[in-house]
Amino acid sequence: MNPVAPLRNTPPSYIREILSVVSNKDIISLAGGLPCPESFPMNIIETAMSTIATDKSLFQYAATSGYAPLINTITERYDVTDGHDVLITNGSQQGIDLCTRVFINKGDKIVAEAPSYLGALQIFSIAQATLATVAQENDGPNIKQLEAHFTQGDVSFFYAIPDFHNPTGCCWSLEKRQQVAALCLRYKVLLIEDAPYREMRFSGDSLPTVASLCPEFAISLFSFSKMIAPGLRIGALITPKRYFSSFNKLKQATDLHTNVPLQALTHAILNHTDFNTHLAASKQRYKARYESLAKAISSHPSYSKCTMAQVEGGMFIWLTLPNCDVSTIARQALENDVAVVPSTEFYNDDDYHPSALRINFSYNSPEKIQDGIDRLAKVLKKGAN
Amino acid sequence: MNPVAPLRNTPPSYIREILSVVSNKDIISLAGGLPCPESFPMNIIETAMSTIATDKSLFQYAATSGYAPLINTITERYDVTDGHDVLITNGSQQGIDLCTRVFINKGDKIVAEAPSYLGALQIFSIAQATLATVAQENDGPNIKQLEAHFTQGDVSFFYAIPDFHNPTGCCWSLEKRQQVAALCLRYKVLLIEDAPYREMRFSGDSLPTVASLCPEFAISLFSFSKMIAPGLRIGALITPKRYFSSFNKLKQATDLHTNVPLQALTHAILNHTDFNTHLAASKQRYKARYESLAKAISSHPSYSKCTMAQVEGGMFIWLTLPNCDVSTIARQALENDVAVVPSTEFYNDDDYHPSALRINFSYNSPEKIQDGIDRLAKVLKKGAN
Repeated sequence: MNPVAPLRNTPPSYIREILSVVSNKDIISLAGGLPCPESFPMNIIETAMSTIATDKSLFQYAATSGYAPLINTITERYDVTDGHDVLITNGSQQGIDLCTRVFINKGDKIVAEAPSYLGALQIFSIAQATLATVAQENDGPNIKQLEAHFTQGDVSFFYAIPDFHNPTGCCWSLEKRQQVAALCLRYKVLLIEDAPYREMRFSGDSLPTVASLCPEFAISLFSFSKMIAPGLRIGALITPKRYFSSFNKLKQATDLHTNVPLQALTHAILNHTDFNTHLAASKQRYKARYESLAKAISSHPSYSKCTMAQVEGGMFIWLTLPNCDVSTIARQALENDVAVVPSTEFYNDDDYHPSALRINFSYNSPEKIQDGIDRLAKVLKKGAN
Repeated sequence: MNPVAPLRNTPPSYIREILSVVSNKDIISLAGGLPCPESFPMNIIETAMSTIATDKSLFQYAATSGYAPLINTITERYDVTDGHDVLITNGSQQGIDLCTRVFINKGDKIVAEAPSYLGALQIFSIAQATLATVAQENDGPNIKQLEAHFTQGDVSFFYAIPDFHNPTGCCWSLEKRQQVAALCLRYKVLLIEDAPYREMRFSGDSLPTVASLCPEFAISLFSFSKMIAPGLRIGALITPKRYFSSFNKLKQATDLHTNVPLQALTHAILNHTDFNTHLAASKQRYKARYESLAKAISSHPSYSKCTMAQVEGGMFIWLTLPNCDVSTIARQALENDVAVVPSTEFYNDDDYHPSALRINFSYNSPEKIQDGIDRLAKVLKKGAN
């Protein structure tokens, strides 16, 4: 018996392969998308867990849709309207997988930004979807390209990360949000808005979700991995009611429901009086790390020919290099004890891709970030020779 | 945009629909498959959770395959050999889903016992597999029918629950285990051995897993939902190494990994000095409840024309009724404030099915079980008129 073709053919994630190397060595990893453990609300967790551990009802089988108090909290926090329902997922990763399984038959067309989140691209590949892409500009997707796809009438959904995009850190402008929402409404194309980084904004003003501008044609995916802690694997999917029973049936078949104790923990944390203070402190920490990274790059002569777009939140910056083989650069960097991810990983094989690196600033201390950028500089300098 | 056909067409689980009714009313539910909360090891959980809540490393992203100490414990507990690997799953439910996604393209043939676990049938339906069945006899599957399927050469896998089957409670004889293993080896057909109830044996001697008799052609699914608590959603999949990378890639795409704190909790519980005593007490409790159920049925004149097979573990008995419309009986029972599941739910539409009811004995106290059987008796008596 052989595994199905896409699993035989899909390579494992480069990032997670790198992570497994990184954990064994004296390497500074600017590659992963890990929150820093100092941002986990351990004090709140400790108190909440001791209560949870005494409540038998949290250890029984439970509703597929999720733990009702957490659903209520999410309904308030994200302004979920009457026309929508919430499903608790194992992180927003499961949300992407469920959306793909609900809507995609083999060969169906998905539109995504180029570049896009590697974990989503893998799901689309396993589902044997046809992937069409739109170029990402500084303020969001290229609208002409998007409309060109939509006019063809065969798009199952548009998958996008409007806030602090992975890998680029790009945050869509209000105008782009309005334009995309208008296109989804006009062409009745479903938007899958993946928003795991949305609440990790550390400067500038929050913009409306695109989903809020075209709610009847939008499914939103949220995650508590960045705000609280990723080991919990707790996220949420918000869908127009007409799709809820399909999602609920699929979630039930997939794993019956998400674990209950950590849903209760997430609920307790979100409602704890200290949580907002904690979250604000996390964002300040990320801001400081981002500024260290920006300073380290801007002040180092080896980066003079590189371009780094500013970001207002999230975990990544996108460093564009002079034209070069970025996979080789990334490999050489690893030999020089610093890990980064080359742009090639985030594109369809056929798409044009710039020479760029994704660099994470959430995980390491400012000192380690500085050190990592110094190590990377040596590789870039050598590459330029 | 419409959901894919099998999600539009698959009805939600009757059992879970019933469960949602049951939780709101003064109904005695003999329908669900819930462990009793008194069997959750709350003392151990409380101690272990307080340690887990102070360990930041358990809240970070982690390896897709699972928490290494838990994998080690499982490797020892289930005699996992060098030729096999362990993947931690969200209950054995996710194990069934992953197996189906790894091996099944639309239309591929799966063989299963008739009757079989409803949650597995739903997954096979969503995957648009072709389901072929073999009749279940008192000591396991009909071997002639099984070989007839295997000889056709197009079977992707044989899904089975050899220990304390859901819904029937049947436990395969040693001879049937050997015969099935021999057929899997001869025809190189993969066995998916779903073993969530295996450790809930309360009388008789444990028999070898079928997987241990044909290890190179077997994937085993274990669950800690019955031994510890289902709300944790922790299970394990044990696969020949040649399939591991496919499972790992799919699990990564599906939800990155299973939550870490409750993997650590499961590890702590399994290794706690009091756990074996606790598990033995749980099994004694289930035995007492089973005996109450058996006695209530055998001593009540309304059940004189019914047949109840003896069980040595698990959570269910299968009550065969004189030929009747069991769906109507189940509905009338619900109106009479007792919930049971009619046999129709566990069969392919086309398969012959006996008039039978699945009755759970793990959840309710002996007194409630007696009361439920009395309530059901009134319906049966009426039905006979």
